[in-house]
Amino acid sequence: MSYESYFQKYREQHLEELKQLLTIPSISALSEHKPDIAKAAEWISNSLSSAGLENVEIIPTKGHPIIYADHLHAPGKPTVLVYGHYDVQPVDPLHLWDTPPFEPTVRDGKLYARGATDDKGQLFLHIKAVEAILKEEKELPVNIKFCIEGEEEIASSNLPPYLDEHKDKLAADVVLISDTALLEPGKPAICIGLRGLCSLEVTVHTANTDLHSGTFGGGVPNALHAIVSLLASLHDDKGRIAVEGFYEGVPELTPTMREEFAKQQFNEDKLKADLGLDTLYGEEGYSFVERTGARPTLELNGVYGGFQGEGSKTVIPKEAHAKITCRLVGNQDPQDILDKIEAHLKQHVQPGAKLNIVQVEKARAFTIDPANPMLQKAADAYERVYGTRALFTNDGGSIPIVETLSRVLDAPVVMMGFGLPDENLHAPNEHFNLENFDKGLLTIVDYLKLL
Amino acid sequence: MSYESYFQKYREQHLEELKQLLTIPSISALSEHKPDIAKAAEWISNSLSSAGLENVEIIPTKGHPIIYADHLHAPGKPTVLVYGHYDVQPVDPLHLWDTPPFEPTVRDGKLYARGATDDKGQLFLHIKAVEAILKEEKELPVNIKFCIEGEEEIASSNLPPYLDEHKDKLAADVVLISDTALLEPGKPAICIGLRGLCSLEVTVHTANTDLHSGTFGGGVPNALHAIVSLLASLHDDKGRIAVEGFYEGVPELTPTMREEFAKQQFNEDKLKADLGLDTLYGEEGYSFVERTGARPTLELNGVYGGFQGEGSKTVIPKEAHAKITCRLVGNQDPQDILDKIEAHLKQHVQPGAKLNIVQVEKARAFTIDPANPMLQKAADAYERVYGTRALFTNDGGSIPIVETLSRVLDAPVVMMGFGLPDENLHAPNEHFNLENFDKGLLTIVDYLKLL
Repeated sequence: MSYESYFQKYREQHLEELKQLLTIPSISALSEHKPDIAKAAEWISNSLSSAGLENVEIIPTKGHPIIYADHLHAPGKPTVLVYGHYDVQPVDPLHLWDTPPFEPTVRDGKLYARGATDDKGQLFLHIKAVEAILKEEKELPVNIKFCIEGEEEIASSNLPPYLDEHKDKLAADVVLISDTALLEPGKPAICIGLRGLCSLEVTVHTANTDLHSGTFGGGVPNALHAIVSLLASLHDDKGRIAVEGFYEGVPELTPTMREEFAKQQFNEDKLKADLGLDTLYGEEGYSFVERTGARPTLELNGVYGGFQGEGSKTVIPKEAHAKITCRLVGNQDPQDILDKIEAHLKQHVQPGAKLNIVQVEKARAFTIDPANPMLQKAADAYERVYGTRALFTNDGGSIPIVETLSRVLDAPVVMMGFGLPDENLHAPNEHFNLENFDKGLLTIVDYLKLL
Repeated sequence: MSYESYFQKYREQHLEELKQLLTIPSISALSEHKPDIAKAAEWISNSLSSAGLENVEIIPTKGHPIIYADHLHAPGKPTVLVYGHYDVQPVDPLHLWDTPPFEPTVRDGKLYARGATDDKGQLFLHIKAVEAILKEEKELPVNIKFCIEGEEEIASSNLPPYLDEHKDKLAADVVLISDTALLEPGKPAICIGLRGLCSLEVTVHTANTDLHSGTFGGGVPNALHAIVSLLASLHDDKGRIAVEGFYEGVPELTPTMREEFAKQQFNEDKLKADLGLDTLYGEEGYSFVERTGARPTLELNGVYGGFQGEGSKTVIPKEAHAKITCRLVGNQDPQDILDKIEAHLKQHVQPGAKLNIVQVEKARAFTIDPANPMLQKAADAYERVYGTRALFTNDGGSIPIVETLSRVLDAPVVMMGFGLPDENLHAPNEHFNLENFDKGLLTIVDYLKLL
């Protein structure tokens, strides 16, 4: 039986199984869902076992458990490590969901549920692909390992120590992840670049109490004046980051890279219309895909201080706050960048204001050479199933664990995504287009065979 | 009997009466206290009647009632209009009060209650001063009118139309108000300047939705970047307001005015220590009392946008907000200032950001020439009772009704305050020092006789 026929035959059964998994509210961020996390881990490990995988383990961590499984009976063949996660994002605001987030529903060829595409649905494809090959051929064309975590949505803090400690056990020739998206329906993409991330929280303090703007206004420092002038100093008036040395380690775009970006034929006018913007904005001299794919950023994610209620309050606030994240590219070192920003802030703060800075996240950018045969074979697999060769793209986002997996296991990472950009990840009405569910199964089988 | 003896004799009775008034929670801001407002108005009108005042009226308004009363039997003598208010501020946070706000208590020569000094206690002095003269001398040395409102703590919106409509009825040679403070115990002051006030709310909009900083960061406008750079542009780096034409109508300080400020011998080092500041901050070339007493300001009272919760959120916010108030001096016109700020904001807003500006409050500054005989006689009265001549001071705050009274009635306003700067107006443990209760009664009697 061809794999098309096989997956056709078991389609309803597979969907029923996936729906079972999707009914488990395994929200990693909320401690009241700890039992659901355990239930989801149990479900995944059972599913791996019944697919024919061996050495299935649920490994407790300080946080949520990691699941390991393998099938290592293809001596001389490459070893593939499949990474995925069984935890999901919170579901607020609940009233915006058309059907409840943990009652999976198919409408118009799309499966709606929290986790449908991120990442339970995509992870499930790998389990079913392996199961299919084992059922049909009794053996796998590669050695395979699964490493599934339950903390991806809360920064994967317990996986890196586990990777460090079990490097040999997890050793692989390629890491395979399905947790990204096609460019658009029918247009597959393999992500070869992710930006790094670093973040900090800044507080400005002035007086020891809020002051009346009548009695004191004009004569004492105002924490809000101090913070807005400080934050404004972080960019020049062309949108370029004004922190000294910020761009060290940022590779200049080569003509080849610019051609690759141009191939995406990104429609900036459509984006402007979609977002209701008169104009895009960013560093001069770069297109939107270049700015988000290959340039670093420094973004204010939150700024607040003083009175926020209705009406007015004549107060001079004693403190003000900012939350800042940077996306990093190339060889920018997150620690170095945070230190440079901190130095800039200290140098530019207004007299009478005191600074408190907390450095939070630190993750390097990830890049891989698209010439790597592991990637080329993935593009081949997509081409055979979708009829279109996958483009190699740079994504503006950050998946810190990808850089960690690549570095610790010293293996190429293939991000073979089957989502779509509008599937409402982290938002109400998350869904997974079943066309990519079907093609995803075939692409994975094909890829494993091509290896 | 001397007035000292008279007030000594009736002291306990007077305090008991004032305590009655202070038990009424006439909080104008909270609609559930409307019956208490009515009760307080009733109490004041009864008190005016029994003091011997005539034509006592409780005048309904769209908001809380105004009380009028007069005693006009001194032909050829000046007419004094006493202004005061019987409403009080809310009392939160209640747990910080040592005794309940509406259970008046005397401790260490201070009467503790909400409204003790602002303004029930100070208003009460005028009623009892007039009563004393009528009891002792059967006639008053002046014609007197009372105009008492119940909305001072909520911006006096219904008094100005009443003043406009009853200009003739309220006509006076001097407006007398006790709703301010001495400089410190034993050091009386007459306020001859109040800053004006204008305010606006600014919203910056960018995209029609919050965006993910990975996918979009660096390529789209960020409402927080737009607002911080816009707000930072409102001042130069010396603390001077950078809005074109802002300082038009601001009188330069004359050597005489500077001498008057210097007489206050204000201790800036003590202020710094009290507020926990390394340094004061403001427009270059001016002392603290000059900055707050004679210079205009533009203060940010609130700025907010984006994520404010714990941890970080990689969001590019679609909107950001600012609340701004200006204190005005001299001939600055609030409408003109608001228009200039609006023009500045429109000119400086970053590409890709849209502005929404709402103008809110508009009140002119108040000033009076201290050479005015009505003020000189007030200083004389203080000198005779306190042994120290009152200083003429400029207050940084704004009491819009003072400028309105002065303008509509075309009369000098004498702010004869008997509070103290640390009596916790608008805060828990508001109190009134009874030394100034006693001296206030005598000063008012003396002033009415001097006129």
